[in-house]
Amino acid sequence: MSPSKSGSSPQAGWRNPLRDSRDKRLPRIAGPSGLVIFGVTGDLARKKLLPAMYDLANRGLLPPGFSCIGFGRRDWSHEEFTDYVRRAVEEGARTEFNATVWERLAEGFIFVTGSFDDDKAFDTLAETMSRCDQDRGTAGNWAFYLSIPPDSFSAVCHQLQRAQLAEAPEGAWRRVIIEKPFGHDLESAKALNATVNAVFDEDSVFRIDHYLGKETVQNILALRFANQLFDPLWNAHYVDHVQITMAEDMGLGGRAGYYDGIGAARDVIQNHLLQLLALVAMEEPISLTPTELQTEKIKVLRATTPVAPLAKTTARGQYTAGWQGSVPVVGLTEEEGFDPASKTETFAACTLSVNTRRWAGVPFYLRTGKRLGRRVTEIAIVFKRALHEPFADTMTGALGNNAVVIRVQPDEGVLMRFGSKIPGSAMEVRDVNMDFSYSEAFTEQSPEAYERLILDALLDESSLFPTNEEVELSWQILDPILHYWAEHGAPEQYKAGTWGPKSADRMLARDGRAWRRP
Amino acid sequence: MSPSKSGSSPQAGWRNPLRDSRDKRLPRIAGPSGLVIFGVTGDLARKKLLPAMYDLANRGLLPPGFSCIGFGRRDWSHEEFTDYVRRAVEEGARTEFNATVWERLAEGFIFVTGSFDDDKAFDTLAETMSRCDQDRGTAGNWAFYLSIPPDSFSAVCHQLQRAQLAEAPEGAWRRVIIEKPFGHDLESAKALNATVNAVFDEDSVFRIDHYLGKETVQNILALRFANQLFDPLWNAHYVDHVQITMAEDMGLGGRAGYYDGIGAARDVIQNHLLQLLALVAMEEPISLTPTELQTEKIKVLRATTPVAPLAKTTARGQYTAGWQGSVPVVGLTEEEGFDPASKTETFAACTLSVNTRRWAGVPFYLRTGKRLGRRVTEIAIVFKRALHEPFADTMTGALGNNAVVIRVQPDEGVLMRFGSKIPGSAMEVRDVNMDFSYSEAFTEQSPEAYERLILDALLDESSLFPTNEEVELSWQILDPILHYWAEHGAPEQYKAGTWGPKSADRMLARDGRAWRRP
Repeated sequence: MSPSKSGSSPQAGWRNPLRDSRDKRLPRIAGPSGLVIFGVTGDLARKKLLPAMYDLANRGLLPPGFSCIGFGRRDWSHEEFTDYVRRAVEEGARTEFNATVWERLAEGFIFVTGSFDDDKAFDTLAETMSRCDQDRGTAGNWAFYLSIPPDSFSAVCHQLQRAQLAEAPEGAWRRVIIEKPFGHDLESAKALNATVNAVFDEDSVFRIDHYLGKETVQNILALRFANQLFDPLWNAHYVDHVQITMAEDMGLGGRAGYYDGIGAARDVIQNHLLQLLALVAMEEPISLTPTELQTEKIKVLRATTPVAPLAKTTARGQYTAGWQGSVPVVGLTEEEGFDPASKTETFAACTLSVNTRRWAGVPFYLRTGKRLGRRVTEIAIVFKRALHEPFADTMTGALGNNAVVIRVQPDEGVLMRFGSKIPGSAMEVRDVNMDFSYSEAFTEQSPEAYERLILDALLDESSLFPTNEEVELSWQILDPILHYWAEHGAPEQYKAGTWGPKSADRMLARDGRAWRRP
Repeated sequence: MSPSKSGSSPQAGWRNPLRDSRDKRLPRIAGPSGLVIFGVTGDLARKKLLPAMYDLANRGLLPPGFSCIGFGRRDWSHEEFTDYVRRAVEEGARTEFNATVWERLAEGFIFVTGSFDDDKAFDTLAETMSRCDQDRGTAGNWAFYLSIPPDSFSAVCHQLQRAQLAEAPEGAWRRVIIEKPFGHDLESAKALNATVNAVFDEDSVFRIDHYLGKETVQNILALRFANQLFDPLWNAHYVDHVQITMAEDMGLGGRAGYYDGIGAARDVIQNHLLQLLALVAMEEPISLTPTELQTEKIKVLRATTPVAPLAKTTARGQYTAGWQGSVPVVGLTEEEGFDPASKTETFAACTLSVNTRRWAGVPFYLRTGKRLGRRVTEIAIVFKRALHEPFADTMTGALGNNAVVIRVQPDEGVLMRFGSKIPGSAMEVRDVNMDFSYSEAFTEQSPEAYERLILDALLDESSLFPTNEEVELSWQILDPILHYWAEHGAPEQYKAGTWGPKSADRMLARDGRAWRRP
């Protein structure tokens, strides 16, 4: 694309014939490398990581000698491990199963048995890696995927350091990929970052927020900065407020161990929703390099604070028995494994302000919950009403505020809501939707978030990974709310299948607004 | 709708529950009145006016004793006339045939035989009208529809004056509805206006531009002024240029009498396209009353001039034999009734500038033609490129300018074209379309333009009718182009089924732009 700036330049024509392809981006293929997965027998590895690895191989994006070492406590033979991986791939991969691709990939799968306090197992791991470097050409380049509870991070990091695996030989690299939760408050996050950064440079740490791997999330940048249509409206002059919603219809059966005592705010707002806020609200980065992108995200997070009084600007809830569709479901405290007296919130909402010139006075409402009416993640930019409405005399009241809604999942896309004349009437106006669906517009299938993120980590492309500073800033935003809640009793109850507690509706109603019902 | 101005007021919420219905507009039903159609045996009356009258009756929008007097040279009995009307209704009405509605309506149909120089016939007309006033309750309120060639306007107007039909009795009204062409240049338009205005006050003259009766055209006002999304972008800061296209795939077989010597610019640009330009480019009217609306349209037309040099900023063409779809078609000069040496243009394009603060430097490209690739009328607002494009490095060149396209016909709707990320790629962006289709969004069927306009005329609602001043201003804009063409040879030939002459493409190419291929 030529750097044409003005509309009247010769490049600005309507039809844009294919330009010379010299700067067309080559397919991004990982160089010689391997991946070690700690917690390879866990749900995440089975459902996401192993299938993503196959999909990457099937798309030709992994290097020829790519190797994947699984580390776990089971006493698996090589065959047992590859059978396990194959089942995971067959169940979870999005691309078709191709026996040739599978066989070449399977040659690189190796299992190492051991626990995190077992020096010998880590020595075996070191030998295995070294063997791969010689036999398969992984060239000393390894990423460690810690798909394990955060309280084991310290043990694994120390073992990697002890076995001299954290430091790369000359000309090679070592990286660590970690999963949330990145602590449960600012203090614990700092401690965790310290643990990891004691062994790995921050440049080598890749924190996975799989939401950032989703196409629509990345499309926020394209929408905002590749177009002329949206940016002029993207500020406090025109935007009334922003709603960021991640609603799930699922309950928490079977997840007590992870979720009880953690709750919706820590599980979702601190990472996913604040990252979405950062992408929506940040200024244009100088370029799309990781550093420039992170600079802008950090800047906007630094400017973000909860709006007081928290008693009215936040809401939390816990689901009780109800109906999900036509199926009766139990409340959280009756779910297997949960404390019957659990005060863990399954719904959390808060009001944030972004104290920048662009957003002053525009509330950002964030909410997330389990067992809500529908599974949907979306960002709604709700605009102010027109400054003057010449149609006021004849309007029937069915005209709401204009909005641009970015649907992250399911059915990724963009929706615009605006007023249009009702046919046949003198001049009545009512809301209509204009829709763009990602899956209808593109024949290309969207890759799974984990495909994108694992490949990015192997390529040292860190744009989509939050840094330790972003993680700590997010906790800094959330901590006052968590403290307030901790001191003020139990969450309000809401029936499964509804849209959360009444206090969430009151929270917007006091500003004369209402949540979108997606 | 409450007059809420600010986004944070209590009325500005996302969901806008139905407000109290006190200012909901009542259905607009015409009061006691009748219509006299001159030229009732012609194509327009048969295909459009008579079916529209039935559709209005079927929707309950005509008064109970509504009467329609047909005036023509044929020696028709009452039965012959009502049979003719019934056939026209059955063939042309958009609503279902309802025998009860038809019978009640048919009672009011009366035929008067005569020619325009026949005093006796007009005396009979006067008696007939007066009888209707007494027997059917038309109350002296009559509109005269001149569905006749303009060279007969003078004769009919004088007859109406002589027979004292042009002046309404105390408390009643008389109106005249006229059809284009409103002259063939400024001078003849002034003469025609003088003829009509000598008999009818300008307030009583309703000039039909059936394009203005179309839903999407009226929706331009709603889009622009009922929303907050579009107006901030609707100016020279963001708009690169505007394209207004009315393309027809039909040829001119059978229309020689009207078209030869007239041509595309007079037939379409002077009225339809300049009216569309006025609605797209005008400032917000103080209210939607006819006077305020016309004030703004006149203001913007006054500020509109052709861009020089006309040799390069205009184009005209005449179709030659070619293919329309898979059917071979003849050229204009081989069409029945056309002079084989005809220099009449069947394609006309011009570049206009609107010399206002809002539009300075933004070219408005207008084009119309017969035997083009497809039948389509649309207005494309093409935006400038983003001032900065951080994606430039990775873009593949498939990103054109953003655009908002208002489709007037067929498939009325709005389309937005913008750049979106291509799934799976690092950060490549290409154009996608977001679409709103009128017919999919509303269950209400759009009324035919003539229904709307006839009803408006009976209701004295003149918003959608161009005034004599607008007509004269339009000729003033077009006259220099017509003079230039008259002095510079014949139109360029283009093959039927293509998108017009090469000079039309060059006209935009010299500005580094290209026509949209709808």
